[in-house]
Amino acid sequence: MAGALASMMVLAMSGQQALWGGGKSSPQVNDDNTVTFSIKAPMAQRVEVQLDYGVLWPLERDTAGVWTYTTGTLAPDLYLYNFVVDGVKTLDPSNVYTMRDVATVKNMFFVGGQELLYQAQDVPHGQVSAVWYDSPRVGKSRRMMVYTPAGYDQGNQRYPVLYLLHGSGGDETAWLHQGQAAQVLDNLIASGQAVPMIVVMPNGNVDEQAAPGSDQRGLVTPTFQHKQWMEGSFESTFADIMEYVERHYRTINKQSGRAIAGLSMGGFHSLYISANQPKDFGYVGLFSAAIRPMRGVQSPIYDNLEQKLAEQFRQGNKLYWVAIGKDDFLYQANKEFLALLARLAPRYTYVESTGGHEWRNWRIYLTQFVPLLFK
Amino acid sequence: MAGALASMMVLAMSGQQALWGGGKSSPQVNDDNTVTFSIKAPMAQRVEVQLDYGVLWPLERDTAGVWTYTTGTLAPDLYLYNFVVDGVKTLDPSNVYTMRDVATVKNMFFVGGQELLYQAQDVPHGQVSAVWYDSPRVGKSRRMMVYTPAGYDQGNQRYPVLYLLHGSGGDETAWLHQGQAAQVLDNLIASGQAVPMIVVMPNGNVDEQAAPGSDQRGLVTPTFQHKQWMEGSFESTFADIMEYVERHYRTINKQSGRAIAGLSMGGFHSLYISANQPKDFGYVGLFSAAIRPMRGVQSPIYDNLEQKLAEQFRQGNKLYWVAIGKDDFLYQANKEFLALLARLAPRYTYVESTGGHEWRNWRIYLTQFVPLLFK
Repeated sequence: MAGALASMMVLAMSGQQALWGGGKSSPQVNDDNTVTFSIKAPMAQRVEVQLDYGVLWPLERDTAGVWTYTTGTLAPDLYLYNFVVDGVKTLDPSNVYTMRDVATVKNMFFVGGQELLYQAQDVPHGQVSAVWYDSPRVGKSRRMMVYTPAGYDQGNQRYPVLYLLHGSGGDETAWLHQGQAAQVLDNLIASGQAVPMIVVMPNGNVDEQAAPGSDQRGLVTPTFQHKQWMEGSFESTFADIMEYVERHYRTINKQSGRAIAGLSMGGFHSLYISANQPKDFGYVGLFSAAIRPMRGVQSPIYDNLEQKLAEQFRQGNKLYWVAIGKDDFLYQANKEFLALLARLAPRYTYVESTGGHEWRNWRIYLTQFVPLLFK
Repeated sequence: MAGALASMMVLAMSGQQALWGGGKSSPQVNDDNTVTFSIKAPMAQRVEVQLDYGVLWPLERDTAGVWTYTTGTLAPDLYLYNFVVDGVKTLDPSNVYTMRDVATVKNMFFVGGQELLYQAQDVPHGQVSAVWYDSPRVGKSRRMMVYTPAGYDQGNQRYPVLYLLHGSGGDETAWLHQGQAAQVLDNLIASGQAVPMIVVMPNGNVDEQAAPGSDQRGLVTPTFQHKQWMEGSFESTFADIMEYVERHYRTINKQSGRAIAGLSMGGFHSLYISANQPKDFGYVGLFSAAIRPMRGVQSPIYDNLEQKLAEQFRQGNKLYWVAIGKDDFLYQANKEFLALLARLAPRYTYVESTGGHEWRNWRIYLTQFVPLLFK
């Protein structure tokens, strides 16, 4: 029997390798931070690799039908990629790690090891929970992800809370996956750069209960399009989330113990939630935020922004942090908003980065913003 | 700005479709429970689809280069599949849902909607947490997944606990992914077929802290091979898991409030943990379990099995449940074990199914076993 079990496993493994493997592991991150991709495709006429959403690079075929491509030196970061084999998008059969961004699935890899904040390190880890809560203002039960820091389960300490919001096309899992938020928090807290905090990641699409695949809609294709989209419904029902969190976690329930931040649509949500609840958030982060409501949208949530912001700053906001990339299509809208802040805010922080409307930037902004909180 | 945001999204979506889509969604579950797979691959010479781990079926090409294949009627179930395009394993570019089984990644879909226990329904949902706990007996911190039933956060009720163990090549996420354990528990509890319970899913590979990709080893390739494998280390350190759970959750801390079950290696672990802790578990489930220790393994954990089992039954075990498929390579070993049970156990339950050593069976066994617990 023991022998049979071992044989079965060897069989299962070699069966797989015979069918799919190319003998080489892919991707291979080389010592000089170049990366070699390889895939066995003897019948293919053309094989390309797409790094993130960039151009297609052609691979070269060897006599055994293994195609390879080696990049130039890559900066330490999280990267996505896929192959294109004779025009068909193909994931790397040698790499089990994938990441979904809206309706696109790609393989992932890291360049940079122990210094990379996005990767799990040998440090104490927080707990991540998929939490269903009743939302009476929405009229249904909904799901959010909650990070509690290492040590939360060992005492009676109360913790500050960061509400961290995703963008259009995202859901409550986006910051954990593309954003690597749990790893970032673990690593920043372990090194003393950030204070231990709870991070609450709700679902900003009020017309869905949970991320695609996690509620009774079944395995629907994720989409940017939602019936309730940037029209006030998330902002006006956000209190349900705060009330649940403050009732079920050991939180510091005052302005100086609450932060709200988000990317793109989540920045927009952060802007208007904090402006409409001027005493609630000590810290606000807008990452590549949308600023103005969609054309034709009417909601009291979006009325009188100037007066609301002025009141928010009078109430003693501690940090108003705005970041955007020079190539972002929301750059101009953010510059106009900064002019408004310059008139209204006693102080605010502006970070201008390279790049555009992309996760690479939002991960960087998270690592910059979190160390500023609750100090 | 608003217009720009909307345009960007339309652009991003149509860009994707132009590049990867075939115009049709795939897979398409038809009204008669046949399933149509399709993929656009105009340059390909041969396109096949592999359902689960079965044979390769050839797709047919239309004039636009879209290849399709329609199956016969499929029974309601969870299915995995992938394409093979000119010999290269390819995931379905139209389907974002994937599932990893050890080092194989495939797309997934469901046949059967609201009646399927494996799919999220419109019922109250339990909470799932990735929990790091200190394991002093192992000497490191490790991760387990914990399901708490709907309503756990609303009162002071205490709940029974099912310890649910994965097989070789698996990890603490296996029962949640391939096993769809949270959906199964939600649905069985909501319909009154099962009592609300906590389900603890630890990692049975003592030489790793957490599932591949979730600890500091980085994005390693998952493997069946572990340094500490079925040699007593998991069984002899299991008390760390129970102690953590009983300290941190509102559990019913007695024999009638504890169950342990697992598949393959996890069945083996369940057998020996419960035999060595004869007063601890009222309910034991062995799903396609390995029975005898590996050749050459010496551990007091595996000594004197008959005496230990006899003592376990004397202590009032309520349910000893053994299930295996007729085609399982462990079938004979289980039959021998049943002969032992026939001699020693005042009562036990044996379920013999069709099929072999596969997740299809383990999901079924879970739906059969859970309703029997804590009643």
